[in-house]
Amino acid sequence: MLDETGASIPRASKTAIVSDSTVGPLYASRVENSLKKAGFETAVITIPAGEDYKNRETLESVYDGMFAARLDRSSMVVALGGGVVGDVAGFAAATFMRGIRCVQVPTTLLADVDSSVGGKTGINHPRGKNMIGAFHQPSAVLIDPATLRTLPPREISAGMAEVIKYGVIRDAGLFEYLEESWESVGALEPEAVSGVIARCCRIKADVVAKDERESGLRAILNYGHTFAHALESHTGYSRYRHGEAVAVGMDFAARLAIRMKLVDESFVERQANLLARFGLPTRHDPASGGELDTVKILELLHSDKKAAGGRLRFVLPKSLGSVFITDAVTDEMIRAIL
Amino acid sequence: MLDETGASIPRASKTAIVSDSTVGPLYASRVENSLKKAGFETAVITIPAGEDYKNRETLESVYDGMFAARLDRSSMVVALGGGVVGDVAGFAAATFMRGIRCVQVPTTLLADVDSSVGGKTGINHPRGKNMIGAFHQPSAVLIDPATLRTLPPREISAGMAEVIKYGVIRDAGLFEYLEESWESVGALEPEAVSGVIARCCRIKADVVAKDERESGLRAILNYGHTFAHALESHTGYSRYRHGEAVAVGMDFAARLAIRMKLVDESFVERQANLLARFGLPTRHDPASGGELDTVKILELLHSDKKAAGGRLRFVLPKSLGSVFITDAVTDEMIRAIL
Repeated sequence: MLDETGASIPRASKTAIVSDSTVGPLYASRVENSLKKAGFETAVITIPAGEDYKNRETLESVYDGMFAARLDRSSMVVALGGGVVGDVAGFAAATFMRGIRCVQVPTTLLADVDSSVGGKTGINHPRGKNMIGAFHQPSAVLIDPATLRTLPPREISAGMAEVIKYGVIRDAGLFEYLEESWESVGALEPEAVSGVIARCCRIKADVVAKDERESGLRAILNYGHTFAHALESHTGYSRYRHGEAVAVGMDFAARLAIRMKLVDESFVERQANLLARFGLPTRHDPASGGELDTVKILELLHSDKKAAGGRLRFVLPKSLGSVFITDAVTDEMIRAIL
Repeated sequence: MLDETGASIPRASKTAIVSDSTVGPLYASRVENSLKKAGFETAVITIPAGEDYKNRETLESVYDGMFAARLDRSSMVVALGGGVVGDVAGFAAATFMRGIRCVQVPTTLLADVDSSVGGKTGINHPRGKNMIGAFHQPSAVLIDPATLRTLPPREISAGMAEVIKYGVIRDAGLFEYLEESWESVGALEPEAVSGVIARCCRIKADVVAKDERESGLRAILNYGHTFAHALESHTGYSRYRHGEAVAVGMDFAARLAIRMKLVDESFVERQANLLARFGLPTRHDPASGGELDTVKILELLHSDKKAAGGRLRFVLPKSLGSVFITDAVTDEMIRAIL
């Protein structure tokens, strides 16, 4: 699949592959060869791997690489890697000469089902995750599930949090399938995994097509994310993989929903059980991540970019496969759960 | 007019006025009071004045001010100043939390007729002007022609280059009006100046509405700009105001058009005469700006972001009020004219 990149993407005068120090050595040369074979002039830009580098300096180094490769307005960026690569390369493409095309070639489960589809791009800022960014839809998304075989198990787990999320917010059938087939999905059996990825991408594309700029519906994709962002920030973006924080956030949201009498205890348990099947945490463990400071968490929640006009916004479940967006969650309710 | 800003713009939870060290002291408090009277929570962010500061550091300082003012996704930026303020503040708005609204309140003639309408935003990069940026349409544009009275005459002239440009590319009647009424326009007589500004904004809005992303028609607005950008870069962005460089670029484009037998000598003279009426240069003067290095100019022209797939793109006149886009201009023709 990766070897067919050149044949699968739109024409462009020049391309730059943006990858990171982990994924680049594994796959960049295959993608590069494929692009060259298809007649593209191609350069490779490598950024350091990890969320720590999803920042302004890395963005600048990508711009520098793009200038060095003499990209112009008709050129194209190929983002090869996980979510960080996709976000940084996508944002560089969004803002280089006021926007050039970008093809996403995700290589992690999380990127496959989440960040590669939907056009959100950006970098972190000392004041928060993804605070600087743009909407920039990819010209194409190319997913090769074989790349998942080189992923550490923890990364597969992290991606599964988002997969399970799609079940909870929009597709009870997917949730049930995962409950039944968690072993084959977890073992990355090609048929099971491809089917699950395709299902998630369809849900995401459908939601984004209805509300690209997140003025309404799209926000349901943030189920579990409000608390996850605060948790990641509080723990310095080092304790949790994004998906792990989302798993904790999903549990948090479900417990808020109990408090608001939207779901009962069995819903929370069922969700927690499926998350646990894939090795995901559902509660913050002070022993490994330090005590959470309630005041700090509330402050972080209020500074989240989804907080509109000073009110917190949460996505809460009503039933399996159905969620809604509310600003009725109070600081007291959050304190009670923490 | 400025005092009615608050009553004239869309509702938002919070606003930040971005202005510069020249315009801010003159007008920011009037705009701020007007916003407060209309019930907006408002902060003022001041950046250093001048094209030299249209860079990454200034952009970062605007982000910092936006975070300090606790702006959120429902907030709005009010860009109060000339083209640099509009571009930097507009780009900050385009990329803060993946895009918040922006109102443009231009205070220079150039910004009135050009940069405030059309949604182009961005900053300069060591590799070229406006190399990093985004398209971000303003939610509203508020023009108070009275602000022009505090502008130095050289700035009025610079703005007039773009005004004359609209005549050449799209509106022979405007060009003729300027030939007849240059004295009243140059003296900033309110009726004459308001009429001219409105006419330019309508032309620009019409062109942009037909081609926002500059895939075709919009490029006609760049008449004179291909050479202007190279000239500005070659002279270190210090010798020329942007409009002055555009005037030189318009003369350059017209002379290319003679060479291609599109127009005759009288067209070039007529354009040069009108530009001169408003105190604009039409040729680069080595005595004040240094010798131009032909090799360097060609290199700069080829690195322009409008150069697509290695070919130069020029906008050339066919007749008064009508231009077209061509990639038939060769390096030889440029050398001959230089």
